[in-house]
Amino acid sequence: MIYITRRECFNAAHKLFRPDWSEAENLERFGKCANPNWHGHNYVLFVTVKGEIDPKTGYCANLKDLSSLIRTCVIDQLDHKNLNLDVAFMKDKMTSTEVVAIEIWKQLEGPVAGLGCKMHCVKLVETENNYVEYYG
Amino acid sequence: MIYITRRECFNAAHKLFRPDWSEAENLERFGKCANPNWHGHNYVLFVTVKGEIDPKTGYCANLKDLSSLIRTCVIDQLDHKNLNLDVAFMKDKMTSTEVVAIEIWKQLEGPVAGLGCKMHCVKLVETENNYVEYYG
Amino acid sequence: MIYITRRECFNAAHKLFRPDWSEAENLERFGKCANPNWHGHNYVLFVTVKGEIDPKTGYCANLKDLSSLIRTCVIDQLDHKNLNLDVAFMKDKMTSTEVVAIEIWKQLEGPVAGLGCKMHCVKLVETENNYVEYYG
Amino acid sequence: MIYITRRECFNAAHKLFRPDWSEAENLERFGKCANPNWHGHNYVLFVTVKGEIDPKTGYCANLKDLSSLIRTCVIDQLDHKNLNLDVAFMKDKMTSTEVVAIEIWKQLEGPVAGLGCKMHCVKLVETENNYVEYYG
Amino acid sequence: MIYITRRECFNAAHKLFRPDWSEAENLERFGKCANPNWHGHNYVLFVTVKGEIDPKTGYCANLKDLSSLIRTCVIDQLDHKNLNLDVAFMKDKMTSTEVVAIEIWKQLEGPVAGLGCKMHCVKLVETENNYVEYYG
Amino acid sequence: MIYITRRECFNAAHKLFRPDWSEAENLERFGKCANPNWHGHNYVLFVTVKGEIDPKTGYCANLKDLSSLIRTCVIDQLDHKNLNLDVAFMKDKMTSTEVVAIEIWKQLEGPVAGLGCKMHCVKLVETENNYVEYYG
Repeated sequence: MIYITRRECFNAAHKLFRPDWSEAENLERFGKCANPNWHGHNYVLFVTVKGEIDPKTGYCANLKDLSSLIRTCVIDQLDHKNLNLDVAFMKDKMTSTEVVAIEIWKQLEGPVAGLGCKMHCVKLVETENNYVEYYG
Repeated sequence: MIYITRRECFNAAHKLFRPDWSEAENLERFGKCANPNWHGHNYVLFVTVKGEIDPKTGYCANLKDLSSLIRTCVIDQLDHKNLNLDVAFMKDKMTSTEVVAIEIWKQLEGPVAGLGCKMHCVKLVETENNYVEYYG
Repeated sequence: MIYITRRECFNAAHKLFRPDWSEAENLERFGKCANPNWHGHNYVLFVTVKGEIDPKTGYCANLKDLSSLIRTCVIDQLDHKNLNLDVAFMKDKMTSTEVVAIEIWKQLEGPVAGLGCKMHCVKLVETENNYVEYYG
Repeated sequence: MIYITRRECFNAAHKLFRPDWSEAENLERFGKCANPNWHGHNYVLFVTVKGEIDPKTGYCANLKDLSSLIRTCVIDQLDHKNLNLDVAFMKDKMTSTEVVAIEIWKQLEGPVAGLGCKMHCVKLVETENNYVEYYG
Repeated sequence: MIYITRRECFNAAHKLFRPDWSEAENLERFGKCANPNWHGHNYVLFVTVKGEIDPKTGYCANLKDLSSLIRTCVIDQLDHKNLNLDVAFMKDKMTSTEVVAIEIWKQLEGPVAGLGCKMHCVKLVETENNYVEYYG
Repeated sequence: MIYITRRECFNAAHKLFRPDWSEAENLERFGKCANPNWHGHNYVLFVTVKGEIDPKTGYCANLKDLSSLIRTCVIDQLDHKNLNLDVAFMKDKMTSTEVVAIEIWKQLEGPVAGLGCKMHCVKLVETENNYVEYYG
């Protein structure tokens, strides 16, 4: 068993707020992240898959295929978008790094199985000071 | 003469568009950056000042003072904000990295002189793949 | 279960030596790290906690609270200090990266439980070429 | 139990191809990596070992010894070399990141045991966008 | 006048040697870089251009155009190639970082002028420990 | 004319204080940096030299020679040392980043001329948030 990781980036706007809370309540719980007019990040996504090595190619997974799959299923939906408004798979969800990481996992789990390997980890870096890891 | 640089970060939303152009025209000229619902970045700002060394302290500028000044004049206005909507000194301006860098310079030039040194460069990093430098 | 990591930095002096060994013996075992007049590092600390996601906020832990807690319990004790002389929780201990990481874990374990999540890992980076991970 | 990691770098040429496949077939499967005249990388190797802490030194492993061992067993064989042509332990093997990581593990497993600790992970970074981890 | 920089990467093999010198002489002058079977690097290229800001767009140069131009004129020639054997504009030249940087400048100077701005600097990073800058 | 830069690292302890000032005065002017028992940093040094390219080698300067020279003249004096107590060329000087950078320049200027090129810049990075540049 070997683990292979692909890094992809996306730049997006978001805010953390609940429409069922007052603006004051949102600011109290989410601080600056509740700014009504949004803020944004250069998100860095690390997708780790695991599997056996194909003795013919030496590959666990073809990185070009893995990259294409991540771009189609995830990056194209998120890059230069508003995570709260523009993304079908984030509809009616909080856009915390935790929730975004889990939803990215859900987008990738099936397609990655089609490459002959299994999802191991989604790591989502929001700033140089914080990131989330989800293992399913 | 010696040059000293302080790094500060801010996370912001923005978009590149002209209200006097059609949405199609904006998308053609600005591509994904014109997304109507905004996108965002982890901006990294490097402010370089120059001056003589104070023989008593060995300092060109006290970094704590320089950092406070940058935070008060720039970061507090930009961090977790929408560059197009929330920032007084960006009002009615394009929010390209070039223009933001120049407006940051204007905010800092006077106050930096008050520290006894001179502005040398504002470097503004928008993504790992692009940045702008302005020397006044 | 999800894992969330916060990065914090501190700059400190230390040396590796045992007062019950001769200076020669210390130099032989610890090399340059035994320099009698100390040396120092920009330490980078990654604290990973794990827990369930609060469906209301989308948070596993509020990063602002986690950061405050790490600063109060750890960074304020270590930053711009001498690890051998100035730090109560390092008294009479070797200041190897391994031991510092374990003592940081001990400082954080109780307070992190108070945030409603559990400690998962303390990663302490001493230089770009070496780091330690402790999982309790 | 504690985990300690040492980073070492090497710069090498390689290509991905099978002499029993046609050049067209190699290009189809391996893309640009099959370029007949080679290409190359700045590989970054992270070796993680685990063990108990020696209460006298505070060390799990002496990093200087660990570094020397990695350099002798691995870096000296790989640095400024052609992974397909110059490296005894890669003879007749595919030079994918996956296979190189596993072969590095095999070189290190015995010698690391001689230091009184155990191999935990070989992480091999080929580019900023991809890396492999092997845990034995 | 403002300066804007675009980063692009390429992975390539090369060696430093003169066919009119003996292998021993090459090894003496170029050390490990003269390895007959090549070695390689993840090169990182920073291209800085300068110009006036277009008041309509806020752009000095459209980064998408600049990136396309760098990819067409430089990256497509160098990426996953052997700098000594595969690159028309390096024919019969030494492949030191210095010479590669200058030849990259020559490829870009004309096309960059076509974007309405001027070349300012080519910075070519060969390893984390060394890079070259050329200003024409 | 071309510019070539070599990076070298050193880990050192220091403090900012004047023995002719009271401890309170030192703390007021230098803040945490005046901690009596020292603190420390992983300093990163970038030395940039300039010159013509030798058409035979393609080199402006042989990096191996430049690295040896920097290690002998600078790194061996500073690494794992106390900048205030252990370094002959820092005797009776403030150990601010500014002053250390200038003193490093003085150590290197003569020897670099001996390599057939000229000093251009000493850049000294104290933390990820601040650095100094000196051009002579």
